Amino acid sequence: MAASVSRSVYDVVRTKRDTRQFDGRPLPEGLVRRIAQAGRMAGSAKNGQPVRLVLLRDPENKAKLAACGSYTSILPAAPLVIAIAIAPTGSDIGELFDAGRAAQNMMVVAWAEGVSSCPNTLQQSEEAARLLGFPEGYRVPMALIFGYPQAGAQHGGRPRLPFEEYVFEERYR
Amino acid sequence: MAASVSRSVYDVVRTKRDTRQFDGRPLPEGLVRRIAQAGRMAGSAKNGQPVRLVLLRDPENKAKLAACGSYTSILPAAPLVIAIAIAPTGSDIGELFDAGRAAQNMMVVAWAEGVSSCPNTLQQSEEAARLLGFPEGYRVPMALIFGYPQAGAQHGGRPRLPFEEYVFEERYR
Repeated sequence: MAASVSRSVYDVVRTKRDTRQFDGRPLPEGLVRRIAQAGRMAGSAKNGQPVRLVLLRDPENKAKLAACGSYTSILPAAPLVIAIAIAPTGSDIGELFDAGRAAQNMMVVAWAEGVSSCPNTLQQSEEAARLLGFPEGYRVPMALIFGYPQAGAQHGGRPRLPFEEYVFEERYR
Repeated sequence: MAASVSRSVYDVVRTKRDTRQFDGRPLPEGLVRRIAQAGRMAGSAKNGQPVRLVLLRDPENKAKLAACGSYTSILPAAPLVIAIAIAPTGSDIGELFDAGRAAQNMMVVAWAEGVSSCPNTLQQSEEAARLLGFPEGYRVPMALIFGYPQAGAQHGGRPRLPFEEYVFEERYR
């Protein structure tokens, strides 16, 4: 691929910050579809595809889902909520890892088009799954929120560990 | 951001496939650093930053790590292996989700520069952590492999669920 393309992908990935302050504008349908598609195209362990997405834009539905988490009162204020469901496949490690892969694909694609996002844990993940109509065995451990950042919004510039405390060569320390 | 940039990010994310067939060329140092940096910049729940990376290029070290997984005999053939370690923070859901986010950032940035990758589960994750010198409590559940794809390599065009079986509006079915 051309150097300019690859470098801009790196810049988008590098500058992405989780934020929760939105201006309320709805996302264009085309972008919503690209975000969902980015999640769908994420790989999964042994192609098990345990992830399902539920797009929520109805205020009442967002409020109901918010009740399944401890720090999720922000959900109704986000123009788009994407609930991440996990089908029962039996692999506990792989499922959450795969969910993280799908989530990051979606958030990076959104960020490339100027849309901020943030994952939110749903502590009552089985209740959330029932609420959204999933059969027994499914759970919804996470909900992503998406929206255009408020003017002057903090992009949550949270400090990262120094590179040399995060990345090691051949061996830890 | 300019439409051309955002669209190319979408295209990179959309076309990324997990592959295990490499031509053996080493990755340039600058790219290895960008990949690691992409992992470091991934967000984490409550900024807990549970993830650590160990870059492996020494054949002997790769072979030792490969012994910690059931389907990981491919590891030594990859020019770059990145072991994903998880520090003991107490949050079990968030940690693997965060590891998936960091992994996807790294694999997308690599793919933008023509480098293929694939996650591999290390079933003996605690043994892998000891092997790499991490203290008690850490585990290494995943190792990513990176390399330039072999000419004519299959990019693992594994089928995805149809969009309408993966994405739902407001409610599952």
